[in-house]
Amino acid sequence: MSRFLCGCLEGLKPYVPGEQPQDKSYIKLNTNESPFPPAPGVEEAVRAQAGVLNLYSDPDGLPLKRALGALYGLGERNVSLGNGSDENLAHIFAAFLQGRGAAFPDVTYGFYPVLCSLMGIAYKTVPLCGDFTVNTADYAAITSPVVLANPNAQTGIYLTAEQIEELVLQNAGRLVIIDEAYIDFGGQSCAPLVKKYDNLIVVQTMSKSRSLAGARLGFSFACEELTAEIEAVRCSLNPYNVNRMTMAAAQKSLAEPGYFAECTKNIASVREYTATKLKNMGFEVLPSRANFLLARHPEIGGGALYERLKAGGVLVRHFGGRIEEFIRVTVGTRAQTDVFLALAGRILAEVNNENG
Amino acid sequence: MSRFLCGCLEGLKPYVPGEQPQDKSYIKLNTNESPFPPAPGVEEAVRAQAGVLNLYSDPDGLPLKRALGALYGLGERNVSLGNGSDENLAHIFAAFLQGRGAAFPDVTYGFYPVLCSLMGIAYKTVPLCGDFTVNTADYAAITSPVVLANPNAQTGIYLTAEQIEELVLQNAGRLVIIDEAYIDFGGQSCAPLVKKYDNLIVVQTMSKSRSLAGARLGFSFACEELTAEIEAVRCSLNPYNVNRMTMAAAQKSLAEPGYFAECTKNIASVREYTATKLKNMGFEVLPSRANFLLARHPEIGGGALYERLKAGGVLVRHFGGRIEEFIRVTVGTRAQTDVFLALAGRILAEVNNENG
Repeated sequence: MSRFLCGCLEGLKPYVPGEQPQDKSYIKLNTNESPFPPAPGVEEAVRAQAGVLNLYSDPDGLPLKRALGALYGLGERNVSLGNGSDENLAHIFAAFLQGRGAAFPDVTYGFYPVLCSLMGIAYKTVPLCGDFTVNTADYAAITSPVVLANPNAQTGIYLTAEQIEELVLQNAGRLVIIDEAYIDFGGQSCAPLVKKYDNLIVVQTMSKSRSLAGARLGFSFACEELTAEIEAVRCSLNPYNVNRMTMAAAQKSLAEPGYFAECTKNIASVREYTATKLKNMGFEVLPSRANFLLARHPEIGGGALYERLKAGGVLVRHFGGRIEEFIRVTVGTRAQTDVFLALAGRILAEVNNENG
Repeated sequence: MSRFLCGCLEGLKPYVPGEQPQDKSYIKLNTNESPFPPAPGVEEAVRAQAGVLNLYSDPDGLPLKRALGALYGLGERNVSLGNGSDENLAHIFAAFLQGRGAAFPDVTYGFYPVLCSLMGIAYKTVPLCGDFTVNTADYAAITSPVVLANPNAQTGIYLTAEQIEELVLQNAGRLVIIDEAYIDFGGQSCAPLVKKYDNLIVVQTMSKSRSLAGARLGFSFACEELTAEIEAVRCSLNPYNVNRMTMAAAQKSLAEPGYFAECTKNIASVREYTATKLKNMGFEVLPSRANFLLARHPEIGGGALYERLKAGGVLVRHFGGRIEEFIRVTVGTRAQTDVFLALAGRILAEVNNENG
């Protein structure tokens, strides 16, 4: 630690993203990217911006905000844009969680506790039930802002919009932040509820369902008053946070709803196929509405399976804590999935031989 | 103010960027953009990324860090990347200024006090001399981190690398942050000094001299220990902060040093031409090493001149405080500059008529 670092950051442990190998080629099922390219026309939209990159991007982004709001019957003043939804979360945490604390499940997106540590936000974790579901009643007595990923990160398990509404109604004086990074793969967004409740913020991203992880575009929905406060934080940190090319790519993506529907439907279908195949191989698979599956096998630990899959050329993700027996597998194309399934089958056969 | 906003943010006044009109067409000399397009090949480099935007960008960015470090004989571990240098500044302020305070000139980049307010950093402003220069001796007794833009924002006035070294040597226990957003238009960077001093951080950007304002790429140079701490903050906030297209555009820009030299030389030359013409018209023009000029005229106030120029189709920037008599004019192409100069001449003639 240098003599200049703020004392409050001593021991800060940054979020560790999934491996992004720059040299070797893997079948990458570890960071929940879409296996499909961006919507038709994105390339041309991006190229058209390349020649005018000498000019700043639009700091307000109203056309894009209008198009995003229209997805859920909301207006441009209900929308804030981020350089990926991690940035939206940072703006929201800075605006509303500092000095007020936070509560979120013990198993969820690992970025929440990191952000809290960085910002000095005291947080409390609420254990998921034994079957890894969220029980909204467990939050009834909590008065600090509540952060839930829905579908939940790592598990993929989903709460209905009605269950989210119950949570919001528990306490009108408490803020609820719903991170819907994975909502488009089979869930119903609760974004329309921000018209009705001023204690709800919904965060989404184009990284997963719109194949734009490498462009970075996140967005939040909230009532106009909260959105104005989020925007004040954004403009205090980086008024030009969304670059020209990303703005154009996002706008074009929204103009191709057919492609979006086709991609998300395909992923949901391969997810169910993969889950069935894994169960047939003896895996326990949590019921996912996301573009990933969390699965464990009684005969091999999550860490060992991760290592063997990696040695065989397939990257998945392995976490510690309550889910250390599991691996998390991103839903890829059917072809990628079949390579993964065949490799997992060979590894299990080897394990059987070793054990037998 | 909503009932959910952190008390510490009550009264937060976001940074107000220069106007970015999305409808009407102006000659834009208000936000210090380059009048030249990005380097040849940037369009192709960006287009090549568009098809793989479904995959996350490289969170480490080592090839780009290596290329940036090589500009000043530094290594990849001396470099951190930002989504524009505003983000680099935010990371640096979060890492080293929270709880320690800051000092900077009374006339400088207006983003510094906004960032301090957002982060609860107590700051002190040090008045520029009567001729708007920075006197480094004024900082000798200051023990909190010092932030200087060099050339200074709004004035364009420049300290030599030797003067910066004196400032750094005043107190080895005090951090000095030099914001070199405008260094490429005729100044000498002090970045090589980070090899010698561990209490110096240098921030630069591709927004101005490399015609990439709309792509957002900032970077910082520091010793390896400080850089590791900046990177820990970056990865705690947004590990994928630089998107694929921007990373590729930046890398390509660095591969075209001839184009870069030609653009910056042209701008320095038009700057001197413009300064001479303005002086001939009776303006006082501060000696600038940046891509803008701060100028005032005894017969018309800065606010009035800004309004009349805008009405005539030329956008410049007007600030309050000690420089409210001035306008700030970005150095454009020779053709843009001639339109501005002709319009300014007509306005001055009108003012003479009105007064006479």
